Amino acid sequence: MKATAELQVIPIASGISLRSEVQAIVDLLNQYDFIIETHASGTNLEGQLADILKAVETIHETMHARGSVRLLSYLKLETRTDKEISLAGKKL
Amino acid sequence: MKATAELQVIPIASGISLRSEVQAIVDLLNQYDFIIETHASGTNLEGQLADILKAVETIHETMHARGSVRLLSYLKLETRTDKEISLAGKKL
Amino acid sequence: MKATAELQVIPIASGISLRSEVQAIVDLLNQYDFIIETHASGTNLEGQLADILKAVETIHETMHARGSVRLLSYLKLETRTDKEISLAGKKL
Amino acid sequence: MKATAELQVIPIASGISLRSEVQAIVDLLNQYDFIIETHASGTNLEGQLADILKAVETIHETMHARGSVRLLSYLKLETRTDKEISLAGKKL
Repeated sequence: MKATAELQVIPIASGISLRSEVQAIVDLLNQYDFIIETHASGTNLEGQLADILKAVETIHETMHARGSVRLLSYLKLETRTDKEISLAGKKL
Repeated sequence: MKATAELQVIPIASGISLRSEVQAIVDLLNQYDFIIETHASGTNLEGQLADILKAVETIHETMHARGSVRLLSYLKLETRTDKEISLAGKKL
Repeated sequence: MKATAELQVIPIASGISLRSEVQAIVDLLNQYDFIIETHASGTNLEGQLADILKAVETIHETMHARGSVRLLSYLKLETRTDKEISLAGKKL
Repeated sequence: MKATAELQVIPIASGISLRSEVQAIVDLLNQYDFIIETHASGTNLEGQLADILKAVETIHETMHARGSVRLLSYLKLETRTDKEISLAGKKL
């Protein structure tokens, strides 16, 4: 099933700047077959629901392996059956 | 990897009351090996990260099969490597 | 105090399409002195924290007056004291 | 207008444990005329919408004055006009 999502991953106690972590997360997302739109409060994704959820799991595992001790993720997910869902279709 | 989570699933256009949908979602979550705490803004979960993400996928599929046309989910996820994570450990 | 924010307002039971409601909310936000960036999962804002919170209150009141029976809002807020916060500064 | 809410405030770079900050935030919320239910992913509130939003502003200001350099807040808000909203009414 296709889905759109917004993902924001917050490393706790990694320091004030999260830029390096955010770049690593976007690099991981780019390995998937997603349409990706980064913005100031997270990254919007369009792809298969199962792939999006798998990417979230991989990000947690990879960021911990990379040194993050505590991770919080905020994920918004949307699916619908009346028409094809897309990031483009959700814009004004 | 173990995780804690908060899941809130919102059916759009299913009517004003979401009680029936919320009950169906909690019934689905009860089929997993989770510690579950329902509250007024969602359901807190403790379990394996992969199982939590699989449950989210199953909930979207099942709720659509049950008649929901448009679904929004809000998921908070937390993992940490310095100690065992648990719902009990996150309370004051 | 200056803040950045992401606001997503979900009318429950207003119908499958939320386009008219989303447009009305963006019109309300445009009446404030905010930098605004709409995207597929909400609207990012930069402005005074007190103004952002006042706008959220006004949106709930106005959308109810306009006919929405049940409203859910999801607000992410960020403030920091080490440097000036901005939407531009949060991008990769 | 009455509202229910869920508030989670995350101090970035304050250290791995957020227990002291969470306690300070709950102490601040207790100074308002709210019904409060703390849980593992935030604090649920019932009160006047304007008071809830004012409390969020006060928390950001107070936590920064107390030493937090960067703060993220996640706020869920709900209002409805068809019946009195309450935390009790949102439970299964």
